[in-house]
This record gives sequence, C-alpha cells and structure tokens, in this order.
Amino acid sequence: MSTFTDRLRAASEATHSLLCVGLDPDPARLPVRDAAEFNRTIVSATADLVSAYKPNLAFYEAMGMPGLRALEKTVQHIRNAAPHSIIIGDCKRGDIDSSAAAYATAMFDVWGFDCVTVNPWGGMDTVEPWLTNTEKGVFIWCRGSNRGAADIQDLAVSGVGNLEQPLYLRLARRSQQRASQGNLGLVVGATAPQQLSDVRGICPDLPILIPGIGAQGGNLTDSVRCGVDTNGRLAVINASRSVIYASSGSDYASAARHAASRLRDEIDAILDAMGLGWK
Amino acid sequence: MSTFTDRLRAASEATHSLLCVGLDPDPARLPVRDAAEFNRTIVSATADLVSAYKPNLAFYEAMGMPGLRALEKTVQHIRNAAPHSIIIGDCKRGDIDSSAAAYATAMFDVWGFDCVTVNPWGGMDTVEPWLTNTEKGVFIWCRGSNRGAADIQDLAVSGVGNLEQPLYLRLARRSQQRASQGNLGLVVGATAPQQLSDVRGICPDLPILIPGIGAQGGNLTDSVRCGVDTNGRLAVINASRSVIYASSGSDYASAARHAASRLRDEIDAILDAMGLGWK
Repeated sequence: MSTFTDRLRAASEATHSLLCVGLDPDPARLPVRDAAEFNRTIVSATADLVSAYKPNLAFYEAMGMPGLRALEKTVQHIRNAAPHSIIIGDCKRGDIDSSAAAYATAMFDVWGFDCVTVNPWGGMDTVEPWLTNTEKGVFIWCRGSNRGAADIQDLAVSGVGNLEQPLYLRLARRSQQRASQGNLGLVVGATAPQQLSDVRGICPDLPILIPGIGAQGGNLTDSVRCGVDTNGRLAVINASRSVIYASSGSDYASAARHAASRLRDEIDAILDAMGLGWK
Repeated sequence: MSTFTDRLRAASEATHSLLCVGLDPDPARLPVRDAAEFNRTIVSATADLVSAYKPNLAFYEAMGMPGLRALEKTVQHIRNAAPHSIIIGDCKRGDIDSSAAAYATAMFDVWGFDCVTVNPWGGMDTVEPWLTNTEKGVFIWCRGSNRGAADIQDLAVSGVGNLEQPLYLRLARRSQQRASQGNLGLVVGATAPQQLSDVRGICPDLPILIPGIGAQGGNLTDSVRCGVDTNGRLAVINASRSVIYASSGSDYASAARHAASRLRDEIDAILDAMGLGWK
C-alpha cells in the first residue's frame, strides 16, 4: 500500500511539475455564472501541467448549497480529467476529539479529498484523528503567508535544551517526530522564505505545501530553492488567483493554461539550475 | 443598534439561563434516523431553559449534503421555537484575507448564525474579516478544553515588560484591546478553571463561551464562578452530549429537558450563592 507521500511524488513525476492550482471561485470575478463550469474548464485546460489542485472550502461555503454542489462536481471532474492529480481540500479545520474525527470523515470520506490542510492551534491531539488513514495526507498549517502570521506563529518559545525558538519551528519539530507514516506534511507561506528554509532544514523528507506566490507576492525562486527536498521534490507550490483569473474574458481557459504553463516551466528551470531537473 | 453582547445579555435574561446546548448529532448515537428531527425535538424540549444553541459544523459536514440540509432546518427551527436564543455556529474557522472573508459570508449570511467560533492561529488579521458586522459575534478560541490544548496555547511567550506569560493570556490581552465594538468574545474550556479565571481577570466585560462540562469532565461550579463577569453574566456554559444524549431511548426529549433543566437550575443556584441571581 503506497503512502500519501509516495502518491504525491508520483503525481509530480507524471507531469514533471511541482505546481498546484488553487480553485477558489469568487462570484465577483468569475467570467461565467457557474462555478462548477468554471472549475471544469480550468482543470481541463491545466491537467497536464500540475501535480495537484487545491479547492479552498471557504469559497464554496460562501455560495451556500449551490457552491457545495459545485465542489462535489469539481472533485469528480478532477478525478476524470486529471486522474494523476492530488486533490487538496484546503479547509484548515481544527477541533477536539469527536469533532476532529467528524471533520476527517467529512473531508476524506464525504468529499473524497486526498489530503487536507489542518490547523494545529488546539494541540497535537487535535491532529491525531486525521492521521489514522495513511493513504490520506495531512498538511499542518505551520507558518502562514499573511502578515499577521507573525502574531502567534513566530513568537519565541522555549525549545530544545531551553534555547528559545519560534513557535512554528517547534511545531515543525513535533511534526517531524510524528511523520513516520508518510502522511504528514506542512504548510509554509512563500512570503516567508527564511521560515520555509528553516522548516525544510528540520523536516528534510516531509511534503511542504507552499501558498503565496502570485497575488500574495511570494518569490518563486526562493520558494523552490528553500522548499524542495534534497532531490528537488516534495514541494507543492500553489498559485490560485494568478492562474484562474489570468483573464476575466472569454479566453480565461487559455489564459489560465498559459499562466500555469509558464509557472511550471519556471519552476522546472529553477530545478534544472539546481541540478535536480526531471530525468 | 444593539451589539452582539447586548443581544447575548438579553437572551440570558429572557430565560434566566447561562446554559447553551450543543447540537452535535452523531448518527451512531441518534435515537431517530433524521438529524433534523432529532434537533427539532431537542430544541422544542429545551427552548425555555437555554440562552443559546451551538451546532458544531463538524457533525453536519460528516453527514454530507443531507447533514447540511439538516443544519439549515435546525437553524430555521431554532428561530421559530426559541426566537430569543443566540445561535452559535461552532465552526472554528481560521484562514487568511479573502478566505476568511468568504468563511464569514458563509457563516453569517448563508447559514445565518448570530455568532461563530474562530481559530486565531493565523494571527489577528485573520480575525478582522469576521468583525466588520457588529451585530454578529465572534468567539476567539483562546484556551481549549482538551488535554492537548497545553501544547501550544499554554506555552510561555514574552509579554508586557518582557515578563513571560502563557500564549492564551497574550491572546486574551490582544482580544481585550480589539473588543470595543461589543462583538468579540473568547472560548475557554471548563476543564481549565485557572486559565478561565485568568482570562476573566484580563477581559472583565467580554462574553466567554465555556465548553467542557458534562462528558468532558469540567466542573460546573468552577466554570460559573470563574467564568461570569462581575454581574454574574456573559458566560455561555455549553453542554452537548450530556444533554442531547441523556437518554438513547424514545424518551430522549424529556430526558434532554430534564438534564438541561437541572443544569440551568444548578447554574442559577451558584449565581444565587454569589449574590448575583436573576432579579
């Protein structure tokens, strides 16, 4: 039985791509009325260019029941049009015992996501219910891409040998200790390359999901160089708005394809320069 | 225009109750097949005994679309059967900028909750999008009722005058500074009475949602004494499993009423003993 990390490696290998496209349909920006149709078009236009798709649950929930039905159709379409792809349910859920287990049921069994993002604020016992199925992946939100991420995640806390360390690094160490099943990864924002580099140093073999390039201003070269493992793999570099809203006109599919293709190629050029390109 | 905190005070006054009932339908424990019917019965049996109901989104999401339709019906039924009640959407959402705004749209505009629980891990800028509508309340998850809450929330960080303080207290201070609009509260678990007391000391006028009595083992007397404000108000004391699953048989409605009534009366007796009973 392959672990989640194995599946992620295979998904990248299949398309020679570390790129993930975030599917965050905002009714105010959609060039068509139907979010499911929009996603279907974006996925069909980019399926050979990406290793993962990442619907953010917030945008579907904001549309009510029709939004949730659009999410259902989107997951189905990705399975058909991009069967190699990992589907990340970006839900950032976090709650205690029976509630955490219920959220895991929702995300893995009801929606059928391959992996999720999880919020660790409640402590490691709130992460445990997500880890029981080793075929499903869990990305712990370790260091955000937003300015406010520093408020809590960067605070100095006592660490190994009573030396002070930032909280996100303490969390990275705890995650590394818990990661032997091949189904645990971390989320670290592209806007914080130093933090990304520090986390990769502590967690050499963990998948890292890296949001924040594109609209949020994270640097792509830094993200790739600091985020990949020693083989140039296991980084999931996400772009949402800069790909899916590359055009607001009727050419949105080809514009998204062009934006994704350029990003994939830029990432691959950085890997080549590191001597870690695809064989 | 009344603030959320005003509405919460009025809801408690209407029933002389600080009790909140958590509506967490678990298919394995329901005495009837339909979660909406179960909730409808529980709400009708307890409407005059509680100031708030708290559906936890996890349990509805775990049932897929039928679960979400049950949640929709539950909110409607509470509006009809308990129009004085506050409805708390226990979603513990937390995400950055446009995602946080989309979650706020979902919880307040789509589902119609009066208030929500929010996860502050991403920093205060992830809480801001929830605070724009002052009629809607936001309970920041400050200190959990679970054992693992200590992993992150209790860590010592530098505070006022470089003195060390636990992270949950730092968060309470930040929240107090931001609370002038009357729509911000905190969640502190009943299983941590010292933490509850410390938070109340820092935030004398903020609503505090207190989960963890009943099935989780929190002490009711401590929760009331440490949790209320100087007037004996603004604590929302939640019981879920110990009320809604008081009986697994066909008498579940009367058993839930009995359990809720006993809790409401115990809380009121504690307030009386403090000289802070209802007039």
